[in-house]
Amino acid sequence: MSFTIAEYKARIQKTKERMAAEGIEILLITDPANMNYLSGYDGWSFYVHQMLVVIIDEEQPLWIGRGQDANGAKVTTWIYHENIIPYPDDYVQSDTKHPMDFVADILKQIGQEKRTIGVEMENYYFTAKCYEQLKKGLPNATFKDATLLVNWVRIIKTDSEIEYMKRAAKIVEKAMKIGIESIDAGVRECDVAASIFHAQITGTEEFGGDYPAIVPLLPSGEKTSTPHLTWTDERYKPGDTVILELAGCYRRYHSPLARTVNIGKPHEKMKTLSDVVVEGLNACLDAIKPGITAEKIEEVWRKTIEKSGIVKESRLGYSMGLNYPPDWGEHTASIRKGDQTILEPNMTFHLIPGIWLDDYGFEASESFRVTETGCETFASIPRELYIKESILAK
Amino acid sequence: MSFTIAEYKARIQKTKERMAAEGIEILLITDPANMNYLSGYDGWSFYVHQMLVVIIDEEQPLWIGRGQDANGAKVTTWIYHENIIPYPDDYVQSDTKHPMDFVADILKQIGQEKRTIGVEMENYYFTAKCYEQLKKGLPNATFKDATLLVNWVRIIKTDSEIEYMKRAAKIVEKAMKIGIESIDAGVRECDVAASIFHAQITGTEEFGGDYPAIVPLLPSGEKTSTPHLTWTDERYKPGDTVILELAGCYRRYHSPLARTVNIGKPHEKMKTLSDVVVEGLNACLDAIKPGITAEKIEEVWRKTIEKSGIVKESRLGYSMGLNYPPDWGEHTASIRKGDQTILEPNMTFHLIPGIWLDDYGFEASESFRVTETGCETFASIPRELYIKESILAK
Repeated sequence: MSFTIAEYKARIQKTKERMAAEGIEILLITDPANMNYLSGYDGWSFYVHQMLVVIIDEEQPLWIGRGQDANGAKVTTWIYHENIIPYPDDYVQSDTKHPMDFVADILKQIGQEKRTIGVEMENYYFTAKCYEQLKKGLPNATFKDATLLVNWVRIIKTDSEIEYMKRAAKIVEKAMKIGIESIDAGVRECDVAASIFHAQITGTEEFGGDYPAIVPLLPSGEKTSTPHLTWTDERYKPGDTVILELAGCYRRYHSPLARTVNIGKPHEKMKTLSDVVVEGLNACLDAIKPGITAEKIEEVWRKTIEKSGIVKESRLGYSMGLNYPPDWGEHTASIRKGDQTILEPNMTFHLIPGIWLDDYGFEASESFRVTETGCETFASIPRELYIKESILAK
Repeated sequence: MSFTIAEYKARIQKTKERMAAEGIEILLITDPANMNYLSGYDGWSFYVHQMLVVIIDEEQPLWIGRGQDANGAKVTTWIYHENIIPYPDDYVQSDTKHPMDFVADILKQIGQEKRTIGVEMENYYFTAKCYEQLKKGLPNATFKDATLLVNWVRIIKTDSEIEYMKRAAKIVEKAMKIGIESIDAGVRECDVAASIFHAQITGTEEFGGDYPAIVPLLPSGEKTSTPHLTWTDERYKPGDTVILELAGCYRRYHSPLARTVNIGKPHEKMKTLSDVVVEGLNACLDAIKPGITAEKIEEVWRKTIEKSGIVKESRLGYSMGLNYPPDWGEHTASIRKGDQTILEPNMTFHLIPGIWLDDYGFEASESFRVTETGCETFASIPRELYIKESILAK
């Protein structure tokens, strides 16, 4: 397990306090990051239904999942084996049986069918069908939306979690450097992606890497007008701009980072854009300290770059740390107008002021933790537009 | 784009025929594989809400997604730019606005709010909250469950799709060989995973690899009692068994494959288990031909291995091809008791008779397509327990 049992129990305790405050007696946790956070459970089994059941007046949670994954729960969690409850395989991707029917039956068997049940309504792993089947199976229960209840517990990290994110940062530094080094005119995009993946997973000599929740995002050329394209097997051309957004991951904890490379001399407008973004990013990092609100950071950004005429319409950053695909963000605080989350020490964010215009774009980002007096970035590599003076590009 | 516009249009046509048969006038497609299948859309943007809207009496679908991804839709799809509708960024992971409110507004604006709307109730990317918000925003619409409607169109592949899966198989053969070669006592699990990732993404000299929808699954030692563990940074020990389940991926099309390696001489019980599984797998491959039902294949397996006393409780395989994380399976036909899907040429399955016992397990699998007269596997590497005669293991 990644943490002491005492740390897991403290997390359960905090979760129960929030449950009590919301009037929730049973919490059905389907977010794999929340399952991992409370129990240690780790495995690529979230493509079938599984959950952790926290009952407010029971010491231990229940793990409910697919039969073949029950041994995985025994290996990776601190939960008593008798609390690990497998469902038969004919519930898997069936058009006649649904795993939530099984969950409803279990809750009935243990006399919990009339309670107030919290469900993560807005989570990839709690489908519309899940909710319909649960309501059908538990007609006497009261359901409450408990989206992000555990995520908000996760927002302040312990020192052990910060240590994992620092290790993830060592990995992302290495992967980013390899990515930047390997980009050149004539090189295939997929070969750059492969080198980055290798660095992400092999990690360092001291510790290995885990799979990041998002694959390397590597738009190039005109495709830098949009952030979420991956790669092709085309070769880079002289003059191409390449955005790299990627994370290091250690035991499911992330440190994301974005940088931009230009193959050969960049256009004037790209130089201007990169200067503006880096200036805004630096101003934000200078301003961040405990007590500031998330929206205030966005205001610092906006006022710093105002004179350039460039406007960023999308959010500037978000809380992140522990996660599983498809996202490393925690979906709690966002650095944007209207978000009044007050920053506290050991909150961790990805600050990513990417700008995507009609036919080009630029990203430079930092992941940071809030310290007692300011903030510190996890990774440390220069914030600038990287210019690749390749022979082909000259 | 990966296919001709004619191929995309033929897929839309088949989808509309199924919609008509089900009485569905508007289909909201949130499954990223279905979105890709019908429009070509490709990007790691599925962590926010997005969809393709197929209207039965409109030629072109609509793409609705996050503002910053709209350029991605313009780059990767065949849809007219005016049909690409971005929503503002303050809908993203917000506790006051939901992207489905925006979708409901669009449908009202174009006069579609009273129609029968199909939604993919059982899909990772259609949360319980999505459904609640849509019902609230479109009180005069009638909703129907359209889970798997497009997936069932996808089940028979065109020759171009088969060609992509063959390329994926070339990649998986390479990645599997590298994985098997690199496993040895004293080697870190993460370093094996890194080599596999590198091979998966770099692909071959002729074509590069795309990211598989599932990362390499690499349980070792006692962890082979369960299939979905990934890797750690521990070193393999003499005597360890390691299961490798991984896919090659080309333009989102997969060819999964599983093999098992033993470091040093395997225990007698492992040899027995591997012989049984390979015999059963071979018997199934011999039996598969057009006209056979999915459940009949399971029966062949069961009868072949009956004498061994080994019983497989989980399904034996599933239809697969195009997909995105978290699963490469199509969630349509499963090779198991009760599934009466009749096999037809160019259906493609992953046949994976893995056996996970209390403290050890074995997997050997094949991906295959149904041919006019039988079946052919995509990859071609020996079906056996691989024995690693390392110096350390002796």
